Amino acid sequence: MDSDYGVPRELSALQKKRALYQPELPPCLQGTTVRVEFGDATTAADPAGAHVISQAFPHTYGQPLAHFLRAASNVPDAQIITEHPPIRVGVVFCGRQSPGGHNVIWGLHDALKLHNPNSTLLGFLGGTEGLFAQKTLEITDAVLSTYKNQGGYDLLGRTKDQIRTTEQVNAAMVTCQTMKLDGLVIIGGVTSNTDAAQLAETFAESTCHTKVVGVPVTLNGDLKNQFVETNVGFDTICKVNSQLISNVCTDALSAEKYYYFIRLMGRKASHVALECCLQSHPNMVILGEEVAASKLTLFDLTKQICDAVQARGEKDKYHGVILIPEGLVESIPELYALLQEIHGLHGKGVSVDNISSHLSPWASALFEFLPPFIRKQLLLHPDSDDSAQLSQIETEKLLAQLVETEINRRLKEGTYKGKKFNAICHFFGYQARGSLPSKFDCDYAYVLGHVGYHILAAGLNGYMGTITNLKNPVAKWRCGAAPFTAMMTVKRWSRSPSTTQIGKPAVHPAAVDLKGKAYELLRHSASRFLMDDIYRNPGPLQFDGPGGDLKATTLCVEDRDYMGRIKLLEEYLNKVKSIVKPGCSQDVLKAALSAMASVTDMLNIMSSPSFGAESRI
Amino acid sequence: MDSDYGVPRELSALQKKRALYQPELPPCLQGTTVRVEFGDATTAADPAGAHVISQAFPHTYGQPLAHFLRAASNVPDAQIITEHPPIRVGVVFCGRQSPGGHNVIWGLHDALKLHNPNSTLLGFLGGTEGLFAQKTLEITDAVLSTYKNQGGYDLLGRTKDQIRTTEQVNAAMVTCQTMKLDGLVIIGGVTSNTDAAQLAETFAESTCHTKVVGVPVTLNGDLKNQFVETNVGFDTICKVNSQLISNVCTDALSAEKYYYFIRLMGRKASHVALECCLQSHPNMVILGEEVAASKLTLFDLTKQICDAVQARGEKDKYHGVILIPEGLVESIPELYALLQEIHGLHGKGVSVDNISSHLSPWASALFEFLPPFIRKQLLLHPDSDDSAQLSQIETEKLLAQLVETEINRRLKEGTYKGKKFNAICHFFGYQARGSLPSKFDCDYAYVLGHVGYHILAAGLNGYMGTITNLKNPVAKWRCGAAPFTAMMTVKRWSRSPSTTQIGKPAVHPAAVDLKGKAYELLRHSASRFLMDDIYRNPGPLQFDGPGGDLKATTLCVEDRDYMGRIKLLEEYLNKVKSIVKPGCSQDVLKAALSAMASVTDMLNIMSSPSFGAESRI
Repeated sequence: MDSDYGVPRELSALQKKRALYQPELPPCLQGTTVRVEFGDATTAADPAGAHVISQAFPHTYGQPLAHFLRAASNVPDAQIITEHPPIRVGVVFCGRQSPGGHNVIWGLHDALKLHNPNSTLLGFLGGTEGLFAQKTLEITDAVLSTYKNQGGYDLLGRTKDQIRTTEQVNAAMVTCQTMKLDGLVIIGGVTSNTDAAQLAETFAESTCHTKVVGVPVTLNGDLKNQFVETNVGFDTICKVNSQLISNVCTDALSAEKYYYFIRLMGRKASHVALECCLQSHPNMVILGEEVAASKLTLFDLTKQICDAVQARGEKDKYHGVILIPEGLVESIPELYALLQEIHGLHGKGVSVDNISSHLSPWASALFEFLPPFIRKQLLLHPDSDDSAQLSQIETEKLLAQLVETEINRRLKEGTYKGKKFNAICHFFGYQARGSLPSKFDCDYAYVLGHVGYHILAAGLNGYMGTITNLKNPVAKWRCGAAPFTAMMTVKRWSRSPSTTQIGKPAVHPAAVDLKGKAYELLRHSASRFLMDDIYRNPGPLQFDGPGGDLKATTLCVEDRDYMGRIKLLEEYLNKVKSIVKPGCSQDVLKAALSAMASVTDMLNIMSSPSFGAESRI
Repeated sequence: MDSDYGVPRELSALQKKRALYQPELPPCLQGTTVRVEFGDATTAADPAGAHVISQAFPHTYGQPLAHFLRAASNVPDAQIITEHPPIRVGVVFCGRQSPGGHNVIWGLHDALKLHNPNSTLLGFLGGTEGLFAQKTLEITDAVLSTYKNQGGYDLLGRTKDQIRTTEQVNAAMVTCQTMKLDGLVIIGGVTSNTDAAQLAETFAESTCHTKVVGVPVTLNGDLKNQFVETNVGFDTICKVNSQLISNVCTDALSAEKYYYFIRLMGRKASHVALECCLQSHPNMVILGEEVAASKLTLFDLTKQICDAVQARGEKDKYHGVILIPEGLVESIPELYALLQEIHGLHGKGVSVDNISSHLSPWASALFEFLPPFIRKQLLLHPDSDDSAQLSQIETEKLLAQLVETEINRRLKEGTYKGKKFNAICHFFGYQARGSLPSKFDCDYAYVLGHVGYHILAAGLNGYMGTITNLKNPVAKWRCGAAPFTAMMTVKRWSRSPSTTQIGKPAVHPAAVDLKGKAYELLRHSASRFLMDDIYRNPGPLQFDGPGGDLKATTLCVEDRDYMGRIKLLEEYLNKVKSIVKPGCSQDVLKAALSAMASVTDMLNIMSSPSFGAESRI
């Protein structure tokens, strides 16, 4: 019911205290005078895709990076935005609700009003449906009062979560024009920001003057690239889940009779599972990225878990906790292939009841092998991002059931001599998603809201707000903006040796980096986690005191200072220039030439399409 | 693996801070000199059962209440325990792990060592199995250091959770004698404390000198009676669950497309569901006690929920949150009867595969109507307390499925014109049970540990530690002990008009009082909860600041000062005595006689077996 959006909520004592918390702003955004420095024109991480992307986004590709600096900062090229005319901005929630989303709106509102009290912020009611239907609520301080630092998306709601079809894009454009919006801020994850990119391009092409800005908000933590270190909501989700996982670990250790299989919401990538594992130290985590890289089959995975159960049984341990990412099913090669066939048949309009009889013999055999409950789930219509309805597919139950069968077989055969195997399955997601946001997410979201305003004030279109150096205190955060197109990649599928299919450019979900430090940390401890029950409980989410200021391990251990390195490179280039000035010695010039020739050769090779096909950040 | 018990744990920052928290002691237990005041001999709440109980417990029935008072208190009859010889005490976890259990051991240890550093506390490893097998760990400050104020039972573990068969009772006695224990402290809920009562009686009869003491620790909150206001663990479980339920409510309100059916661990009684409902304000709660009292069938319940869904649909609301107690299945008359038949067949040794064919025609028809998953769960062997394996029976899924079918029928019929009904089911329990205990549970458990020692120091056998006035700060808590037998009741079943079967006396789980203030509070708001989405989020468990000191609503609203009233009555009796002394006027004496005659007549009637059959606290 629309009339429920934005109504004042009854708050508990803790919620009231949270509502009074005022997030800090980094120095670069304090005060009313902010400078913008534009960097070099951007390219795409995957050189092979750059051409495809530039063709698809002729108006918004290659725009420069933007950095927001304090007025007093000593950067000669930076321009001070002095004009702050009143502007009209629309904001819309798009995609799964993530803790902190409300603070983006709050930050945006505060920045708008600070720079011009006559500016207007309109929230679209019911997500994209409100955007298409021009249903809005004017955001005011009064409206915000019971939503500041609170979880959920219930201030405005969400619905369809896509702005993709021509009809949808046109409806959005009509809204922006009718409502005379100077800016449209889209709050969401990879899919929503891909849609935002397309909208920005369409608006630029149609000379619709509304600028489109994206804000990286997704509990999955998979909107990660050179410019984006983490997403609003990820920190909270991992903290709430880790608490619950740790409670289950303690429970396992107290009664010593159950194996808990816990699936974690977070879509196909395993960022949530990895972070929670590093927080809680459960016995095992199955990362989709490992499974995909090693092409592990359902049989392999079952064997792996059974071997672990057996090894623990030999030490007289009959309990354990195993984490599974939500979308594991899409990482297991044969299940993925089966899903592809099913989705193909959906696409052809085959009804759910008839799909199983239309499967290829191979897929049909696998389908019949699976327990009935999972068959039903695999047959569900795909989601708005074309992947399976991952939340509904209970991979944890499938694995638990297969492990039980195999352990029973080993018991009968006499190769396993331990006690009976008992599994309890969980899916953690909904119970974490509506949580009060952590301090980090409150701050991050609020500052991103401010950044959203400055992007619009600088007149930029097709940009996402970015904050880097997040592992450090807010006072050291660096704020900027990067074009959507610079975060895009293009997928290729080899259908046969001669043909390659090329996907649409998109902001794709980042996989867990199997060469990264966080993964290394996990591997380093994996065998102790497995055998030694060194469970650890970060405890319930706290807002003060120990734990209140902690940040995600994966955020802190990874050395992701891409923007810092870009700066450092510029300094090197300037140093070379200043050393090798006309008048320097022949030898110095020769050395510089030779060194630079080899550097550029090497970088050319690394940036060629054939080399780059494999490289990703 | 036994060697894992009591090993130092790796603690997170928050856990470390919690480990440093020192619970307060109420004034009556401070210092080394505590007085004991003995009250009158106790009876049983149910006068009809008193005879049966006294017959079954000849050695331990009718013992007086004990109150612990500070040394300086002005109570003439109270005796100071001056002798504190070194004693040897064993302690065992029995029953579902509940947050705070570790603090009972800590409090017991501190009290023992404070009164005589040569006293010894031995923890039985692996619960009752360790008790039978004489496997112990000496509890020391070093052992306790990483378990203070921490959740779980992993310091000592738990296993079978019963001391009931002659073999088990004898094994326990041999252990107590061999290990020369002066006291055995049993930490658990209703079943464990009933076992403890039996053990105390057997020990007294066999002149085994070990005294048996019980401590009310159970997350179910159903060990509730005139002497016991609440149980260790209940507060934490309700807080953790409420947080999750509230998150789900926020989630429901953000996307507005799901009905969440949440079943809450807590066995048959609905204390957890009631408390969580009062904290989180979900749309509906189904209390087992209401269902049983109104004899609602599965069909009635389905209709009730469908009508609610329909009423909400008419207001354009397609989301909601419904709470269900773990053991609802035993409150639904026809399902309970079916379960009784199944358990009867189990008892006769009929194998699981053959049970369905042995059911009566009526039960068989119901069984076949139920979805396959629930049939399988109903066929599970009963638990150690003879009830069904409630944790495994997914009533939430059954109801969701029945509601979906009915709503679809109404849609087809055209009587419901709303959107499709989507349900998501949850069972919250394991993820709450291992939580760090709340401040209240830390305090309550620690003080109960001290009380346990004082019961032993006073030489009492067959008592449970009791603390009353819990809704007030620790400084106002009143500590005492009550005989197990005073908390017992006897169940009767009418098999036919002429025969009545009488159960064994036991400390039975208390049902939610449908005449109590907490229930009244719920009923008062039920229609607003249902329609207005006045969800409320108490937030994650906090240890300081707002929310840190909050106590359960059901504890605070109920006026349970039984012990205070006993005292008040004594004062009245004394007043009458002091006014009507020899020498008073005839008129005063006559008035007193007449008034007292009517009082005693009335009380006699109320206490007669025929009257009392229905009355329970």
